[in-house]
Amino acid sequence: MTASLIDALREALGKAKVDTSGAGLDARRHDYWMVSHARDLAGEGAPRPACVVRPASIEDVQATLAIAGERRVPVIPFGLGSGVVGGVIASAEAIVLDMGAMNATRFIDPVNLLASFDAGKNGLEAEEAVALQGLTIGHWPQSVAISTVGGWIATRASGQFSTAYGNIEDIVHSIEAVLPGGDVVVLGRGPRASAGPDLRSLMMGSEGCLGVITGVTFSVRRAAQSRALSAFSAPDMRAGFELQRQIIQSGWRPPVMRQYDEREALRLDERAKGCLLLMIHEGPAALVAAQAQAAGAMAKAAGIAVAPLGIVETWLERRNHVPGWEQILPRGIVADTVEISGAWTAIGNIYDHAVASLKEMEGCLAASAHSSHVYRSGLNLYFTFAVATQGPKVMEAVYLDAWRRIMEATDRHGGSLAHHHGIGRVRRDYLERELGASGVALLRRLKQAIDPGGIMNPGVLLPDA
Amino acid sequence: MTASLIDALREALGKAKVDTSGAGLDARRHDYWMVSHARDLAGEGAPRPACVVRPASIEDVQATLAIAGERRVPVIPFGLGSGVVGGVIASAEAIVLDMGAMNATRFIDPVNLLASFDAGKNGLEAEEAVALQGLTIGHWPQSVAISTVGGWIATRASGQFSTAYGNIEDIVHSIEAVLPGGDVVVLGRGPRASAGPDLRSLMMGSEGCLGVITGVTFSVRRAAQSRALSAFSAPDMRAGFELQRQIIQSGWRPPVMRQYDEREALRLDERAKGCLLLMIHEGPAALVAAQAQAAGAMAKAAGIAVAPLGIVETWLERRNHVPGWEQILPRGIVADTVEISGAWTAIGNIYDHAVASLKEMEGCLAASAHSSHVYRSGLNLYFTFAVATQGPKVMEAVYLDAWRRIMEATDRHGGSLAHHHGIGRVRRDYLERELGASGVALLRRLKQAIDPGGIMNPGVLLPDA
Repeated sequence: MTASLIDALREALGKAKVDTSGAGLDARRHDYWMVSHARDLAGEGAPRPACVVRPASIEDVQATLAIAGERRVPVIPFGLGSGVVGGVIASAEAIVLDMGAMNATRFIDPVNLLASFDAGKNGLEAEEAVALQGLTIGHWPQSVAISTVGGWIATRASGQFSTAYGNIEDIVHSIEAVLPGGDVVVLGRGPRASAGPDLRSLMMGSEGCLGVITGVTFSVRRAAQSRALSAFSAPDMRAGFELQRQIIQSGWRPPVMRQYDEREALRLDERAKGCLLLMIHEGPAALVAAQAQAAGAMAKAAGIAVAPLGIVETWLERRNHVPGWEQILPRGIVADTVEISGAWTAIGNIYDHAVASLKEMEGCLAASAHSSHVYRSGLNLYFTFAVATQGPKVMEAVYLDAWRRIMEATDRHGGSLAHHHGIGRVRRDYLERELGASGVALLRRLKQAIDPGGIMNPGVLLPDA
Repeated sequence: MTASLIDALREALGKAKVDTSGAGLDARRHDYWMVSHARDLAGEGAPRPACVVRPASIEDVQATLAIAGERRVPVIPFGLGSGVVGGVIASAEAIVLDMGAMNATRFIDPVNLLASFDAGKNGLEAEEAVALQGLTIGHWPQSVAISTVGGWIATRASGQFSTAYGNIEDIVHSIEAVLPGGDVVVLGRGPRASAGPDLRSLMMGSEGCLGVITGVTFSVRRAAQSRALSAFSAPDMRAGFELQRQIIQSGWRPPVMRQYDEREALRLDERAKGCLLLMIHEGPAALVAAQAQAAGAMAKAAGIAVAPLGIVETWLERRNHVPGWEQILPRGIVADTVEISGAWTAIGNIYDHAVASLKEMEGCLAASAHSSHVYRSGLNLYFTFAVATQGPKVMEAVYLDAWRRIMEATDRHGGSLAHHHGIGRVRRDYLERELGASGVALLRRLKQAIDPGGIMNPGVLLPDA
């Protein structure tokens, strides 16, 4: 069956686009989810897929979906594999659709501030392309250099400058996608429309389950005229949250607002004292000056001391560094970051309960959090845990236990169980707590309507029926 | 059949909630669409519906949908009837679901800045309820006093202060709705989530076709600390657009930015000269001062003169006045406002071509436009036309011809064909130009998945298959 599938794909796309080499298949078995790497270590890793297809055009994507649809073969869209929730795990019969060859800059329009790319474009390369014209996409996920612009859409991503510049849904102008039946949709036209439900939203967060994103146009910005930094030391997390609430609810919007608990503050910079609150202000010079001054005055009024601005510079330098699993897992340690969001009145409790629960785990080496995305109604938390285990055979169970503790603390206080990494496999059994049973049923119905054959990335997003 | 339907509804909901009085039915035959009123004048008006149901609870809505579903009877959700695109027109067999009795304030949370209402809550009353606590929803459609918060969701509405405070999709925190099958969904939980596609978007712009919106929670704001006004006289529309582009793309966001062509400027205030550009700045005092100063400096650099600030006050006083059709239609005049959006490089051409085309119409009395919602990538235009006709029998055809001219001018330059009034009936045959054939097919598929019986507001949004 696999041989006939590969023959059909090669006939339709050309031989060079259908990779069945051992190295090619191995490199596309899974993404950056810790569990996949731990399974590899335990000798229980994901199998090689049937093949890796590298489309060069929309027509190649359509042809692949047509062949997969006829044969009911799973198709797993693959960007650059930086996802961390198990959104990509190959099965032996699956086609992995590696979008890396569709990586063109389609156009950059400096008058209307639009920039359009193939979905497989590397995020940092996209940002560098617009920067040449004095522009910025303004979307800076930690993975910016190892993710694609299409992946940003599929995961409903957030960047480090989101508090002023918005999350991906605030930056996207239009999305081009191929639906499982072969239709090409281009969603988004003018600056804003009231023309039925915004169908772009269907693709944002679709995690490869509703179609293949092939192109993205962003509503970009001019590079900021001016930048200023602020840093404060709060006596505890709640005091820092309250200062952030006052700043944002007063109508100020620093693009970066980050708050670290004591443990993470010291890890970031040894000059830190207590909880650390970092801000970057950007925009016209007069706005930046007024905002930095206001933030300082509000901190002073709250009795919160300033911290060295050099710590913000430290963060700017180190912000995209992530240690590889190969430095962690072979030592028998499981670790991860888990992002959730909660209302202002809930977030202190979520923090306390999740950290306390993680610390109860046998072998807990670290349990900490920072916040990094602020809204009028609340903010996110980004937990980090590390737990020493007895080795590969138990790592997955220990890991899932740590996740469960964070999910339950968040759920208990009404927070959202996923802020910006998505659902993938690690959260799909929690989706009902987020959407309710009827919300999950609605999503299932949409999936069924768009992908009746169930070929698009099965096993992801939706819990088993 | 109708008698048995009414019996079933009365049995399930209680007699008082099922209105079959002539006055009750007459008042709910249609919304504020000009065509419905012209048809009434021509003696060809919409029929009375089978009944008007006024649910008092979610359970009442569920019971109504269950009865309608069994019998395949159309259900037409009705807010306050201020829609202007034919989203509500009764048929003789239909149930009009008047949400007016579900009008409670559910809660106001001044710490997390959330305010929750039944969907039938009058918009101005909702705003007044939060204002008592020093808050604002910040959503000011012209219809604020004659529309419901649920209607804002259903139509994907915009308010006059949108340029800083966003359109309805930027203000909504969560939406409660009853789906045609009876499921209650509550969409939206924490401040932000990446938990699959944002299902709130399905309801925003659904125009009664996907379910019944029963509750809305907004992410509100603190009332602004400070306000400043700006007014400028631009020599022509293009010069004004260019100044708006420079201001918004520099990173400033006045909540109100409005630009009137010469005709509308004079109609607003006789002190106006040329094209008029009005702004309201709101926020912390230092931000407002910096922004008003920057706008003034940018206008000066562009050679654009200041205009009397009193004109902004005139606008603030008169902004929600709309003449009734009874003052216009009996004189044989058809008139309407039509809102679209376009990129900065397109908007001048759309303006020129639409106005020129309208002026070619026999009997054209007025053809003008203003802009009122600004984005990084472009802005909207709000056309006004008035055309003298030979009377009721030809009014609809003349009206549709005027619409066609605006739709075609917009389409020709790649604009969005509906900015914030929705599709209803007047635009449904243009939907394919906005979404493409495959986009319409996708929307049709979603409708079929959620409302397989086709009971929800048939004839609206989607073109005939």
